[in-house]
Amino acid sequence: MKSAREMTTDVEQMKEGDRLDQLCINTIRMLAVDAVEQARSGHPGLPMEAADIAYVLWTRFLKHHPANPQWPNRDRFVLSAGHGSMLLYALLHLTGYEVSLEDIRQFRQWHSKTPGHPEYGLTPGVETTTGPLGQGFSNAVGMAMAQEYLAEYFNRPGYPIVDYFIYAMVSDGDMMEGISSESASMAGHLGLDRLVYLYLDNHVTIEGSTSLAFTEDVGKRFEAYGWHVQEVDGYDLPQIASALVAAKKETKKPSLIIARTHLGYGSPNKQDKASAHGEPLGAEEVPLVRKRFDWPEALFHVPEEALAHLRRVMETGRQKEEEWSSLFESYAKDHPDLASQWKAFHDKDWPEGWQEGLPNFEPDHGPIATRSASGKVLEGVAPKLPALLGGSADLAPSTKTYVKSLGVLKADPCGRNVHFGIREHAMGGILNGMALSQALVPFGATFLVFCDYMRPSIRLAALMRLQVIYIFTHDSVAVGEDGPTHQPVEQVAALRAIPNLVVLRPADANETVFAWRFALSRNDGPTALILTRQKLPVIDQGRFASPEGLLRGGYVLAEAPQGTPELLILATGSEVHIALAAYEQLVKQGVAVRVVSMPSWEIFEAQDGSYRDEVLPASVRARVAVEAGVPMGWERYVAPGGKILGIERFGASAPGGIILEKFGFTAEAVMAAARQMLGKS
Amino acid sequence: MKSAREMTTDVEQMKEGDRLDQLCINTIRMLAVDAVEQARSGHPGLPMEAADIAYVLWTRFLKHHPANPQWPNRDRFVLSAGHGSMLLYALLHLTGYEVSLEDIRQFRQWHSKTPGHPEYGLTPGVETTTGPLGQGFSNAVGMAMAQEYLAEYFNRPGYPIVDYFIYAMVSDGDMMEGISSESASMAGHLGLDRLVYLYLDNHVTIEGSTSLAFTEDVGKRFEAYGWHVQEVDGYDLPQIASALVAAKKETKKPSLIIARTHLGYGSPNKQDKASAHGEPLGAEEVPLVRKRFDWPEALFHVPEEALAHLRRVMETGRQKEEEWSSLFESYAKDHPDLASQWKAFHDKDWPEGWQEGLPNFEPDHGPIATRSASGKVLEGVAPKLPALLGGSADLAPSTKTYVKSLGVLKADPCGRNVHFGIREHAMGGILNGMALSQALVPFGATFLVFCDYMRPSIRLAALMRLQVIYIFTHDSVAVGEDGPTHQPVEQVAALRAIPNLVVLRPADANETVFAWRFALSRNDGPTALILTRQKLPVIDQGRFASPEGLLRGGYVLAEAPQGTPELLILATGSEVHIALAAYEQLVKQGVAVRVVSMPSWEIFEAQDGSYRDEVLPASVRARVAVEAGVPMGWERYVAPGGKILGIERFGASAPGGIILEKFGFTAEAVMAAARQMLGKS
Repeated sequence: MKSAREMTTDVEQMKEGDRLDQLCINTIRMLAVDAVEQARSGHPGLPMEAADIAYVLWTRFLKHHPANPQWPNRDRFVLSAGHGSMLLYALLHLTGYEVSLEDIRQFRQWHSKTPGHPEYGLTPGVETTTGPLGQGFSNAVGMAMAQEYLAEYFNRPGYPIVDYFIYAMVSDGDMMEGISSESASMAGHLGLDRLVYLYLDNHVTIEGSTSLAFTEDVGKRFEAYGWHVQEVDGYDLPQIASALVAAKKETKKPSLIIARTHLGYGSPNKQDKASAHGEPLGAEEVPLVRKRFDWPEALFHVPEEALAHLRRVMETGRQKEEEWSSLFESYAKDHPDLASQWKAFHDKDWPEGWQEGLPNFEPDHGPIATRSASGKVLEGVAPKLPALLGGSADLAPSTKTYVKSLGVLKADPCGRNVHFGIREHAMGGILNGMALSQALVPFGATFLVFCDYMRPSIRLAALMRLQVIYIFTHDSVAVGEDGPTHQPVEQVAALRAIPNLVVLRPADANETVFAWRFALSRNDGPTALILTRQKLPVIDQGRFASPEGLLRGGYVLAEAPQGTPELLILATGSEVHIALAAYEQLVKQGVAVRVVSMPSWEIFEAQDGSYRDEVLPASVRARVAVEAGVPMGWERYVAPGGKILGIERFGASAPGGIILEKFGFTAEAVMAAARQMLGKS
Repeated sequence: MKSAREMTTDVEQMKEGDRLDQLCINTIRMLAVDAVEQARSGHPGLPMEAADIAYVLWTRFLKHHPANPQWPNRDRFVLSAGHGSMLLYALLHLTGYEVSLEDIRQFRQWHSKTPGHPEYGLTPGVETTTGPLGQGFSNAVGMAMAQEYLAEYFNRPGYPIVDYFIYAMVSDGDMMEGISSESASMAGHLGLDRLVYLYLDNHVTIEGSTSLAFTEDVGKRFEAYGWHVQEVDGYDLPQIASALVAAKKETKKPSLIIARTHLGYGSPNKQDKASAHGEPLGAEEVPLVRKRFDWPEALFHVPEEALAHLRRVMETGRQKEEEWSSLFESYAKDHPDLASQWKAFHDKDWPEGWQEGLPNFEPDHGPIATRSASGKVLEGVAPKLPALLGGSADLAPSTKTYVKSLGVLKADPCGRNVHFGIREHAMGGILNGMALSQALVPFGATFLVFCDYMRPSIRLAALMRLQVIYIFTHDSVAVGEDGPTHQPVEQVAALRAIPNLVVLRPADANETVFAWRFALSRNDGPTALILTRQKLPVIDQGRFASPEGLLRGGYVLAEAPQGTPELLILATGSEVHIALAAYEQLVKQGVAVRVVSMPSWEIFEAQDGSYRDEVLPASVRARVAVEAGVPMGWERYVAPGGKILGIERFGASAPGGIILEKFGFTAEAVMAAARQMLGKS
């Protein structure tokens, strides 16, 4: 069997300039025009512009099997310029994916398979959700990193089980966004030769010509990153094909093919104009386009000849998957352990006994920061979980995320530590790309305050429901001397605002272990672990409740000795210890106080009502919440009349202990609030 | 008088390699070592590494007057690598700013002038708050854009009133961050020749060698952006000086000087090692460093000779400011109008009668989107407010932020429209840099959902209390067909979580006018205007309260006809209209309902308690809040027993009206909630 790298196309054969090719290309183009027109909304410009390139790629290079979009060894196609979604939907329909002409007619309508921007999980064949520019660019880099690792882990001589390319179509917007610069630098550094990017160099953005704001030499920039760069005419099919052949032959560098294209290609009055970008061509222009391409008046016209030609992909795809499947059968015989691991990776079945790697912490081992506890979890379980990989945005010594026994991705055999560099946003996009392999669970770490730098990617992980694990350390003003730029205040609240994201702020080392258990088992969305820089006591499980309670989001950590509480103290993370210190004093004073550890609002809200009532009895209105962050949202648990000890300003530079004291995070402050609640002085 | 460009230094003179120079340099270096050691926290590596370069720059190039850090025509120095703050504090102290040796001793302590990272407003001579990497890099670009505009606006033949350079010291981290790539591309595009960046190319990051993650050709990349690039030895003073001379002579491009440096220079065991980065050198190493530089044992030793030499800057600075002041005096005689405008710019005194440019909207003009109303405000007032400038991240036609009468920055004479390109994060950093001119009020626009891309810069605007105006349009799921990637759901909540930021979501065109009035008058922090894509009715001021109520954050828009309400409906932005529609029905049904428009929580919270009680009487617990976003935080106003009509999921692709209906944003849903509140069915 030829390797993916050798499977190219006969460029000579194409030089004839086939009438059928043009018919197919115009079918793609006009389906997009009609769908946008009918929806009265969308972007016709890109599909019209890029139909030729997409046609060459999808019919002569892309290895895929429309009947099985999940085939693991398929090539990936990422439309980073997601606003051109109709290009992708037209390709999916015409090459035989489960996207019908009726689906195309429903473009941008409620509950359709063809939303305004491509959405992963909604449409067969869509590899990632795109639209926010630069994200797809970055996802594809993550996909290539996943491919590298999986290939190294699973391939054996004669068995190139993992042997695919990642193609991405990118726009000016992608090229301008910082996340792409970060990701491109990373891809060049790692020499990700399985990446082939097609850049639609159309000289037009929404505000007008790219000359208004974007005059850099893109090719030279990418050469500086270490990429292989070519330029082509975006309408010369043999030239496009030759460039793709050369890109695939390049074995040391990622490839950028700069295709000079024309937005709204073929529209007599809108080609090369910003007006072809974000709105339908309109009732006057569409007939002119039809005329230009000699296209019948009927909407959504698909010539049978074109459809038959394009659907040949179904047969070649079927053959290729079959070849692969029989290869995999032999592989499974020769390497049964790897074949069963292959299945386990894809099923997210962790190997038996992986939990044995989890540490347990005893109070008498002394205080330990939750970041350090997290590091010990990683050290313990990562060697047992080969599907787990990740790293930090140049903060591994601080975030405790470098696992010495694992080696470094690409530098060492099957290395799994990733040096993301000081590139948080790329890290976010790359983690998503890795998770999209559907075989890996990636993690990424930085200081909590810098989660802001990667927020758009976190949002997309949540939207796509990807299993991505974020390790955000240095989680409060207790960071201390580094001051307000490095002290998160609003970040926990802001993360809680993101739908589908689980935010977990464990109170000590053992809650951290359970937080990791949760994150590793949650395969329908991302989890953010919020960890301290400073050391914290290990909570005595002999005296207080088991940290397993974390798995319910909130739980009674310390009960009122009297049985029925008159006062609830709610806290998360490092503030749980302040709550416990206040508890000890209040109990001595005869107050019936309960401490509730609330590591995760999202998990707590997912519990049934009776459990929630049990933990937070409606009858007890005297409540104090303690969290070293903005109080926003705590009103849900303590209002009215309750008190929230939070922070409504930015932090300050001073030793952490002093800041906590100045900001009122002391047992005394909690007790004062408690007494106020109870009307005692 | 020589222009700033001509004021360089005699490089030949320096070639001697002066003993005194070395003494001064080592004074800077050792002050930093001792301060970090005493604080037991901080970054000694960078000050040790960059003392030579800083010395050359600060004593021979930087035009500044330590006794007046506010002198408008000073050169700006930005330490983008803010973790090296002790370099800056040492320079400030030694050249005569109001930073005493005692302040240096208080490095990183509570309420000191010398926090862990430089903080604007806290320390005389600190031009911007840095630490989060890439931000200073971007701020400096904004400072240069401000310089360009101010020079063009104010300078007249013979009167180079605005004639300064912006120097920035940047690190590997800055070079890796996407915001810097975006900003560098922008600076190259605009040919900002007043920018001179000194890149400390030290080959070391926190995780180890830069070869782990960062192997691109930085110089080539910057050439691709259109920068002038030079390389120097970071310890060869004449070479550094020559490069600075050449950089200043370059009149078409920004300059990058790549200085090969060594982290922790002079530390026998830590130089070039990551361990010199984020922690004190330690009790064993410091004596070795002292020995290496022949330095006495006394801590914070400042040789008199060195101090005297460095403080000569006070005299040259005084002379330069005096020259400028007398030039300005003549200028004021020849151009009295400009001189008085100069004062007005710096005092943020808007010209008399500027409000006459504000539009007024009548219901019978038909419905209008708040983004369009905002556009009309800009069209009306911007020509009258020459200190106002800004633009959009390539979405001007959608955000309505391009003011036709103003021209384009750098392309047109005194042009003030900025094409930021598809670079939201750079826009955020640049806006901060412009605002730091203390003479301009910048605005920047994008879709609300993409505020996530610039969040780290918004945070810094809030931390620095800069007057920056954000125009975030397309503010809810009503965006429609573009789908969840383009529909903000959690963004308003996440913005509200940022301290010092005022978030304003006006309900109609006239509230939008008042929102702009507020933003233009708020000069102690940033304001975010949250605006609709879709058209909204203009609220009838004959029937309902004046939109001036917006200036109090929340106000009674529609009162219960009965006088005393039994039910409150709270809403913001487009949902106010749904609330009003429900109001009309409920009133007909005899319900005593009040509608409260709540455009800004922050402003409302700043009102006195009696006003807030008046608007939201504690006795009325039947409350419904309506906002098309995550409900987080609304509990403050409606709990307990109240109802929040919000969105706890991501959006969907469909026409906006359909989504609003499916998501329950209808008068019927509000009425149902209201009846439930009142126990009626």
